Amino acid sequence: MPELRRDPLVGRWVVFSPERKQRPQDFKSSGILPGPIESFLWGNEHLTPPEVYSARVPGTPANSPGWQVRVVPNRFPALRIEGDLDPEGAGLYDRMNGIGAHEVVIETPDPAVALEDQPLEGVAEVLRAYRSRINDLSRDSRFRSVLIFKNVGQLAGATLRHAHSQIVALPVVPKVLDDRLTAARAYYKEKERSLFEDILRAEQKEGTRLVYENAGFAAFCPYASRFPFELLIVPKRQNPHFQQSSDHELALAADTLKQTLQRLSKGLRHPDYNLILHTAPLGKPRDNGDSSDHAFRWHIEILPRLSGIAGFEFGTGFFINSTLPEEAAQFLRSVRLKPQA
Amino acid sequence: MPELRRDPLVGRWVVFSPERKQRPQDFKSSGILPGPIESFLWGNEHLTPPEVYSARVPGTPANSPGWQVRVVPNRFPALRIEGDLDPEGAGLYDRMNGIGAHEVVIETPDPAVALEDQPLEGVAEVLRAYRSRINDLSRDSRFRSVLIFKNVGQLAGATLRHAHSQIVALPVVPKVLDDRLTAARAYYKEKERSLFEDILRAEQKEGTRLVYENAGFAAFCPYASRFPFELLIVPKRQNPHFQQSSDHELALAADTLKQTLQRLSKGLRHPDYNLILHTAPLGKPRDNGDSSDHAFRWHIEILPRLSGIAGFEFGTGFFINSTLPEEAAQFLRSVRLKPQA
Repeated sequence: MPELRRDPLVGRWVVFSPERKQRPQDFKSSGILPGPIESFLWGNEHLTPPEVYSARVPGTPANSPGWQVRVVPNRFPALRIEGDLDPEGAGLYDRMNGIGAHEVVIETPDPAVALEDQPLEGVAEVLRAYRSRINDLSRDSRFRSVLIFKNVGQLAGATLRHAHSQIVALPVVPKVLDDRLTAARAYYKEKERSLFEDILRAEQKEGTRLVYENAGFAAFCPYASRFPFELLIVPKRQNPHFQQSSDHELALAADTLKQTLQRLSKGLRHPDYNLILHTAPLGKPRDNGDSSDHAFRWHIEILPRLSGIAGFEFGTGFFINSTLPEEAAQFLRSVRLKPQA
Repeated sequence: MPELRRDPLVGRWVVFSPERKQRPQDFKSSGILPGPIESFLWGNEHLTPPEVYSARVPGTPANSPGWQVRVVPNRFPALRIEGDLDPEGAGLYDRMNGIGAHEVVIETPDPAVALEDQPLEGVAEVLRAYRSRINDLSRDSRFRSVLIFKNVGQLAGATLRHAHSQIVALPVVPKVLDDRLTAARAYYKEKERSLFEDILRAEQKEGTRLVYENAGFAAFCPYASRFPFELLIVPKRQNPHFQQSSDHELALAADTLKQTLQRLSKGLRHPDYNLILHTAPLGKPRDNGDSSDHAFRWHIEILPRLSGIAGFEFGTGFFINSTLPEEAAQFLRSVRLKPQA
């Protein structure tokens, strides 16, 4: 059973996952990611746990070939779906069981196609898979939040090359999301406006950090980007819950994602990156005074891993960035893409 | 002039350092760190800015051969020593100038010797250099805190191989240090005991996470280690300020550091790591109710970079660790070192 432990010095929780264990001699990495993963290919559906979602050719049965996007439980989960949290003290320390869901989204059966190189409809299909899974996971009353993320390349923590993303449902609202909710609520309380809307308008007006926009979304390099070429994708509609997006909105989101990832990929020669989709906690806001629905908005962060995280960042919590977002955005705007299909 | 920008969503500051700039095409790393750095060798002292400290053969002049440890201003500083903060608004956003000191500690003139492979007196000489620099920087009233860190290996953010560490003086108390001060003060307020003392006693009593101890210090794998083989070194005396350590204490700290780094290096075949030295903010506690002197203790963190930081960590602020600290400590205790000189 995975275990959560709390650091008494900083109040941070750590997930211990012995199932994902490496021996000391296994830690040095080879520097090369494995190519085709058998279990991600058509015909090998029996090599994974049974699918919890698939977008597939009508009439083909579950766990058989014919799918375009397939979601399965992670075989090496950081968190386990069975059991209860059972929080307890351990002398000076606190611990609880690592309960949660951990799923893998296989974004395409083709081992050689990156997310952004799929046709627009393929990218939208991946976003619809996310939506369906969040809706399903929200029925489990133990879960308070869902995080979707994508690690691309070894520097970003990927262990395989085949295009995939991960879904984690958690029994808590993690600190990173909670900080954003708190900032958005405080801003709304003071100004009765959405912080996300104000940032979006400032970026549209200023223009220097904008990379791409369409009727539903804007992508820009944030003012205080931690990483060179960091990107933020924000919906133009005040919508805290990703899973409440319409098909039309997801098509516009897919277009924005494809455009920005293609610019990143072509301009910087396929950099490693993390993609993170933040959506509001599950369920209804618990206290009456909650203003999340007016304040917070779901959003996507893209964090290229061109520079490392070193002693200064760990020691301070600050980041050092050598590239201003204005320069990064100008570079990404100037990348010439092939005409889209 | 470096610039500090604040992210309105999370309240985090980012340091923009155009002096350290890379062009987009420079970001892909070669995977190999440069070997001997000319400016770190005897006879090339003119290639660095003039030294601010050195431990050297008596009678040899500053900025000439004969030094064992040499501290110079960073040629590519993340922060600049000249000027004022000049905080200002930029529309929705906040910015200020990047004021601070950024120095490099050349730990030995020998390009091939790692810190832990120096004789004990050499390691102590490096710690005495840290102490002297913190004492000197504390005379500049603009600075509120000093961070010392060491990046070893490319995965830890190092750009060169020659043994060195870095000193940063900041006009603020960074969030990571502030969180620890807050936790230690809250604990002291409730129990009138030092959290550090209680952790130390719990680890000595439990024993399973202890790696090494001597009369002045204990090194152990923390209960909620973020990284496999993470280590914490804590002094046994209640001392918040590293720079108030005696020569005798620094010799004991050097012994602990050498022992733990040698175990890490031998047991895990020279892993990349970050070392971070946290010391209490400069100057006297500002409010009367401050209990830092009884609550907080300077300490050293060692973070081996065997596993990456990926989407889950960025998305939640949690860490996933595959190795329990009890197993890590047992492994490190079992590493057989050569008899020490």
